Amino acid sequence: MKNLGYYNGVCDEIEKVSIPMTDRVCCFGDGIYDATYSRNYRIFAIDEHIDRFFNSARLLEITLPCDKAELKRLLNELVDKMDTGNNFVYFQATRGGDPVRNHTFSPGRPANLWVNIYPKEILDVYQKVRLITMEDTRFLHCNIKTLNLIPAVMASQRAKEAGCFEAVFHRAGRVTECAHSNVHILKNNTLITAPTDNLILPGIARRHILQACEKLGIPVEERPFTLTELFDADEVLVSSAGALCLSAEEADKRPVGGKAPDLLKRLQDTLLQEFLSATK
Amino acid sequence: MKNLGYYNGVCDEIEKVSIPMTDRVCCFGDGIYDATYSRNYRIFAIDEHIDRFFNSARLLEITLPCDKAELKRLLNELVDKMDTGNNFVYFQATRGGDPVRNHTFSPGRPANLWVNIYPKEILDVYQKVRLITMEDTRFLHCNIKTLNLIPAVMASQRAKEAGCFEAVFHRAGRVTECAHSNVHILKNNTLITAPTDNLILPGIARRHILQACEKLGIPVEERPFTLTELFDADEVLVSSAGALCLSAEEADKRPVGGKAPDLLKRLQDTLLQEFLSATK
Repeated sequence: MKNLGYYNGVCDEIEKVSIPMTDRVCCFGDGIYDATYSRNYRIFAIDEHIDRFFNSARLLEITLPCDKAELKRLLNELVDKMDTGNNFVYFQATRGGDPVRNHTFSPGRPANLWVNIYPKEILDVYQKVRLITMEDTRFLHCNIKTLNLIPAVMASQRAKEAGCFEAVFHRAGRVTECAHSNVHILKNNTLITAPTDNLILPGIARRHILQACEKLGIPVEERPFTLTELFDADEVLVSSAGALCLSAEEADKRPVGGKAPDLLKRLQDTLLQEFLSATK
Repeated sequence: MKNLGYYNGVCDEIEKVSIPMTDRVCCFGDGIYDATYSRNYRIFAIDEHIDRFFNSARLLEITLPCDKAELKRLLNELVDKMDTGNNFVYFQATRGGDPVRNHTFSPGRPANLWVNIYPKEILDVYQKVRLITMEDTRFLHCNIKTLNLIPAVMASQRAKEAGCFEAVFHRAGRVTECAHSNVHILKNNTLITAPTDNLILPGIARRHILQACEKLGIPVEERPFTLTELFDADEVLVSSAGALCLSAEEADKRPVGGKAPDLLKRLQDTLLQEFLSATK
């Protein structure tokens, strides 16, 4: 297939799949998701993404209709249907459907399971990106990968209009994360990254960066850091499933980073190699 | 029709209407809504609800596919199709659809227009309700009536589990609103209600309460108030399109209100009379 949409067992090209108007996604955005990439028909870090998906579901009391092994099998089967092996692999679960709109729900009712797969490559990890910064006005559940993404939509649009890759959120100067990435800094050969509290998503790419740091002997500080520190950093890193570890050259039109290119490259080489090895 | 679902010109019973998987509601909850009630086939406060709907759209840069007069005509036509004249009239707009998931959007592209109508009566305005209180962890765009409603869903569920009608949100003790209602207090013959900033929805029922206060000579203070003031109030009022002006008898299992029954009844009589007169 050239692309693939799946909803509760029905599978077709995305444009041909429809969902019932009664799905709770329609009125409440009431669901959770996760996403990763396949290369050569192998899904990268699939177990980690499925673990996080189940954790998001647990935190919102959404009952998934399958167990982890079944979901993994399904995703692998669906990727195998694709014309190309290099894809974006997106899956979500919504909290069932109701004939009439009602905020409250029936606990334990199995969720609706969705999958979207379409050809897409991870980004060139060595490219330089530009950033804007914005006050973080999101809710206090950013540790859960929900479908309530309007603030991320609006921030991404502001970044795009500014010709930038991402918007860095901060709460009164404390950097949290970006609209659809985590953000980290390198300073004095140490990687500094915000702790995984309710203000950021516990990124899988973030975790892989921390593992790479350990492997490379780069000290890590998981602690809040500020915009001032970001502007003063040796390197500013942006990470997500599709952007393993990009570095920024500009934020709010001011130059940032570029002061630890060798350390940066070692980190990026390690992360890219891990991705390539796992999807050979 | 026994109930009605409408999506971009297609109209059928709600259970029979489906929407494309590419609609941006599916991945982002990327849309806005409004809702009111009809009685005797007359939609209450329709112009005010349509005004607020257009304002929500403007704040999220969503381009509606029709003007206010066209939307009003459509809603009236759809209500006329119903078997009963007493209905919940819900309408929403989502920011178009994309073949692949992308946070950013194409400005100016017309939104998808949705309507749901089904039989429902407003609540008995004279009933007493129970409340719980909860920390307000929502985003800072509560003035916009968006489809990003997971925190309201979870809070409503907590209220239901506690046998309560609503959850009163507060930010570090400052009362904002409820999960799907505004909240106000009466104290010393004055109505106190939170100001319409980005922490609360500017309720249409709230506005009607303020108008009723003016008519009845009840002074109004639009200012932040605290949980302590709520527990100490003469009456605690909850308002929404379906709950014109309910009063609470309990919050967090502690008795509240009940100390200004005559003033409360004058207010409720006025609001109910306004609803009944407008929908004769």
